[in-house]
Amino acid sequence: MPRVQRKKPLYDQLFDLLRDKIDDELNPGDPLPSERSLSERYGLSRTTVRLAMSQLEAEGLIVRQHGRGTFVAESDQEPSNLMDAYSFTEHMKSLGRTPRTEVLEFEHVEATRIIAEQLGIRLGEEAIRMSRLRIADGVPMMFESTCLPAHEFRGLSRSDVEHKPLYDIIEKDYGQHISVADEEFCASIARTQEANALDIAEGAPVLRLFRTTRITSGAVIEYTRSVARADQFHYKVSHRRI
Amino acid sequence: MPRVQRKKPLYDQLFDLLRDKIDDELNPGDPLPSERSLSERYGLSRTTVRLAMSQLEAEGLIVRQHGRGTFVAESDQEPSNLMDAYSFTEHMKSLGRTPRTEVLEFEHVEATRIIAEQLGIRLGEEAIRMSRLRIADGVPMMFESTCLPAHEFRGLSRSDVEHKPLYDIIEKDYGQHISVADEEFCASIARTQEANALDIAEGAPVLRLFRTTRITSGAVIEYTRSVARADQFHYKVSHRRI
Repeated sequence: MPRVQRKKPLYDQLFDLLRDKIDDELNPGDPLPSERSLSERYGLSRTTVRLAMSQLEAEGLIVRQHGRGTFVAESDQEPSNLMDAYSFTEHMKSLGRTPRTEVLEFEHVEATRIIAEQLGIRLGEEAIRMSRLRIADGVPMMFESTCLPAHEFRGLSRSDVEHKPLYDIIEKDYGQHISVADEEFCASIARTQEANALDIAEGAPVLRLFRTTRITSGAVIEYTRSVARADQFHYKVSHRRI
Repeated sequence: MPRVQRKKPLYDQLFDLLRDKIDDELNPGDPLPSERSLSERYGLSRTTVRLAMSQLEAEGLIVRQHGRGTFVAESDQEPSNLMDAYSFTEHMKSLGRTPRTEVLEFEHVEATRIIAEQLGIRLGEEAIRMSRLRIADGVPMMFESTCLPAHEFRGLSRSDVEHKPLYDIIEKDYGQHISVADEEFCASIARTQEANALDIAEGAPVLRLFRTTRITSGAVIEYTRSVARADQFHYKVSHRRI
């Protein structure tokens, strides 16, 4: 398996150097040298320094504060337990953040093949399709596209989903008991409109999540595709050995 | 919070169109039209078509076979249960794939701050640091950097880790019982050398995993940082409600 050996670019070398410094010498909240001083100290162009810093920021290792400078990120970017994390509202509250939801689309549609398959309804049967932007403390965090089987949600309005968590609507307003949520996920990169909605650069890393929620009868009550900012979502999971 | 509204580029529009086609009309293994015919049908440049196809490939939706064409990916890209997935060797075997490990580095080092903290040893104490490339059916899948507390692994050689899964070494050769592995993960993008090792494009999506494995006494027996190809690792997890 021949591989082309590419030389490690300068910004990548600087990234490594700064990451090791953050890991081994600095503490959360410590200031980083300015771009100008890094550029002078290592004899690198400002563009190179900026690229390395953007990458450190994209990976959540540093935070930039306008007019104040750049700092080692607080580790209160505590990873969330994946098993607890299926309700955005509850998840953000548990992190001490204030969640808010913008409903961007809310419409009744005829189920396409993928919607019908995911919801277990007939092709062309009525479904509700909505997209929501999830925000915490003013920061756009996640973009979600949700499909619901319309026959389970008679009378559901845009204003309902604007004001209540979906799981409350399902359980309290429509009297269904949620038994399980199956979630698939993979790493990906933000496409133009996603980057736009999430206020990140095109090509920035994101986590894609696909969730299927079932009620006690086994029927699917929700199918959601989410795109989450990589710098805002760190998950953890424990594997216990018997 | 003002956001710049960027126009959706052509390759992104084509990506959406093809993804919807794959979701709603095509089946796994179905051929996709050639780049030339897509370019003619939609009046787009070959470059635009190629960009859209690269993105579909990077997300694991299509596979390209040299000389044969492009096909909708088989869904036997079944997501793996995250809870079962902590041993690469076992994980790959469970998917019916043949795992292989290339040990790229194996050395004794003095613990830096991050290594000491992660392993719970003193700064400067001896540690073993190794990096391994994990391969399945000839495809590079994951790049791993592992640190071990040297005092727990007297006599461990490079050849040991080349030929046996680390978990077998810990449990069978060194008689320790693994009680728990805590894993953190986030989405990211491949840096130059990672892209090189994994045979993917720089900037392609990857999953970063950070694993801390403990033995019965509570001591850390392994700390590993992994970079996994996004197109090869899809995980799933179930949230059960009580």
